Amino acid sequence: MENAFSDRITDVPKSFIREILKVTIDSSIISFAGGLPNRTFFPVKGLQQAAHDVFEEAGNEILQYSNSEGYLGLRQFIADRYRTQQGLEIPVEDILITTGSQQGLDLLGKTFLNEGDDLIIEEPGYLGAIQAFAMYRPRFHPVPVFEGGMDIDKLAQVLRERQPKLLYTVTNFQNPSGISYSDDNRRAVAELVQGRSCLIIQDDPYGDLRFSGTPKVSFKRLLSANTVLLGSFSKTVAPALRLGWLVAPPPIMDKLVIAKQAADLHTDYLAQRILYRFLCDNDIDAHIATIIRQYGKQKEAMISAIKDSFPAGVQSTNPEGGMFLWVTLPEGISSMALFEAAIKKKVAFVPGTPFYVDRKDSNTLRLNFSCSDEPTIVEGIKRLGQSIKELL
Amino acid sequence: MENAFSDRITDVPKSFIREILKVTIDSSIISFAGGLPNRTFFPVKGLQQAAHDVFEEAGNEILQYSNSEGYLGLRQFIADRYRTQQGLEIPVEDILITTGSQQGLDLLGKTFLNEGDDLIIEEPGYLGAIQAFAMYRPRFHPVPVFEGGMDIDKLAQVLRERQPKLLYTVTNFQNPSGISYSDDNRRAVAELVQGRSCLIIQDDPYGDLRFSGTPKVSFKRLLSANTVLLGSFSKTVAPALRLGWLVAPPPIMDKLVIAKQAADLHTDYLAQRILYRFLCDNDIDAHIATIIRQYGKQKEAMISAIKDSFPAGVQSTNPEGGMFLWVTLPEGISSMALFEAAIKKKVAFVPGTPFYVDRKDSNTLRLNFSCSDEPTIVEGIKRLGQSIKELL
Repeated sequence: MENAFSDRITDVPKSFIREILKVTIDSSIISFAGGLPNRTFFPVKGLQQAAHDVFEEAGNEILQYSNSEGYLGLRQFIADRYRTQQGLEIPVEDILITTGSQQGLDLLGKTFLNEGDDLIIEEPGYLGAIQAFAMYRPRFHPVPVFEGGMDIDKLAQVLRERQPKLLYTVTNFQNPSGISYSDDNRRAVAELVQGRSCLIIQDDPYGDLRFSGTPKVSFKRLLSANTVLLGSFSKTVAPALRLGWLVAPPPIMDKLVIAKQAADLHTDYLAQRILYRFLCDNDIDAHIATIIRQYGKQKEAMISAIKDSFPAGVQSTNPEGGMFLWVTLPEGISSMALFEAAIKKKVAFVPGTPFYVDRKDSNTLRLNFSCSDEPTIVEGIKRLGQSIKELL
Repeated sequence: MENAFSDRITDVPKSFIREILKVTIDSSIISFAGGLPNRTFFPVKGLQQAAHDVFEEAGNEILQYSNSEGYLGLRQFIADRYRTQQGLEIPVEDILITTGSQQGLDLLGKTFLNEGDDLIIEEPGYLGAIQAFAMYRPRFHPVPVFEGGMDIDKLAQVLRERQPKLLYTVTNFQNPSGISYSDDNRRAVAELVQGRSCLIIQDDPYGDLRFSGTPKVSFKRLLSANTVLLGSFSKTVAPALRLGWLVAPPPIMDKLVIAKQAADLHTDYLAQRILYRFLCDNDIDAHIATIIRQYGKQKEAMISAIKDSFPAGVQSTNPEGGMFLWVTLPEGISSMALFEAAIKKKVAFVPGTPFYVDRKDSNTLRLNFSCSDEPTIVEGIKRLGQSIKELL
């Protein structure tokens, strides 16, 4: 059947990260490779109680087929939270519950991309987005991101030369780099996009996990009709439930609902009801504050260990939130070679390469700080520092 | 943003059935229009207990990200059931858990279809499949199905003239028609497909719901390498959980897993764990037997009411299982016109038109018998019979 496959699936390579994660299953390895939230903070008891209660109160209703848009209560909760947290008025009709925010990416690709269409992606960029969009065979235009946001000159150039349909951004504590866009940078991006038929996708799975600095302005406020928001409960409650959402204005939502129906009819309704009940009966802000406190401490431990253990000439970002930071080795040093060396010292990370759409190697790497306690972080970074020194 | 949409999403019409179902929300209407399993049989207590137990025993593990293939225990349960129920040896590696079997259709479209590729679909055919595949813009070749299976001459003709990549079938108690393929018909289909690079998709959401007749041979036995099986827990346990599966040999599975990752990373893991625990702790066969008993009685009531109330010249199928039967009005009588007339008498159904890929009207209609009790069925069919007589 080999020659029967579609072009799109033939072109997509096997996930490099999946292969890496296999190596790190060995429990003697200190792994900064994963992209997982820390399971210590999953609200097991709260969700267990919520599950019990929705079965008691709603019986077989919560087990039937439901509508494609998602449970109204949960969508209303999300709308309310946009109002209280960000001062954004989002009509509940503009919210679609998705099977994780990963599905939001797939639905957007399906709804907008013809083969060969232009799409702007951050460089480095979120691998899951690259994979989801790649299925629709667009032409990727990577625009570099740094501390403070997107390379505005490069963005202007792409917008001058091409007519991109989509501009994909993770503006807060980006995966993989940990960087955030400043207010000025967001305004500059919005100004360039204004008046064009280009949709800004603001994917914000980490926005609630801010441990320093101040919240920044949303593209939804700057350029409402051109903005789609993606959100997720994976990092604030639990990822297993695969509950995310998408915010889009009505003409786009109409099409997205058609794509959603074709994709899986609707998202697990039992999970939606359990989550909604949990959110109603618990203080989600207090819960998030607990996560932030610990992640913030772990990030500080990592930054401080990097200062102590890494040789001069190695750069790292210093995120104000999220789960990742990004290390840049001196020019010419391969992070793939470093991975080979580090694994011998029983420490793992993800080399930067898969986060670029067109590179075979790079001098960058991603470190996760959400899943290791502080002593483990100090020890792991020390070993990694030794590996870097040996390579220099 | 209107002109920014992809061609695929611009071409797909709004779901006709969604519009119809809106009419039937009025609780004074007797509705044979839905496609839902009967909620009376959802195992509320069993699933509630299973949810409690998995939270107790597996705590935060069941709330973390999981692998794209699905929970091994659940996949093993499915493999075991193929062995005990159908004598099929399915390696657990060949089983992928999907977000409802609807997602299986989307993943197959993504993995196989380039724009313009040939695809064989039953006529009438499952609307959800038409919608899922339409997203990949194939050329549909409808082949009629009757009591006993597919029109073999027409199938032979399509296979002679085109090179279809996919052949989509619902061989047991088909949605919408309720027909099943005989053993001879399955063998004839397999013989025609053998030696070609064409994949038979055997979608079997209703196979367990047999109330008469004997089980028929699977395409998996007749033509293993060319067959993909789709299955679902929506009709035997509960649809809200969105838990289905797909069986495919390794070279195909490799590609499907890539598509699955891009689509939603993995299916709700909490739901998988709850369902698995439920299946281990309860007698699923006894549960299914209860459903079958009631659906069988309701089907008999509908068939008998049709004999009593419909005028001569109206044909109906007599399914051996499932949830639907199919009515053919005399030539030239529009089921859309009948819908308008019937709704005035407070009875609803789905006109046949959306189940064809290329018709504007038809003399056929789908009746659901899983969700109405026997007196309601008798009354509803009586009203429908009156409406038909008025139209003749």
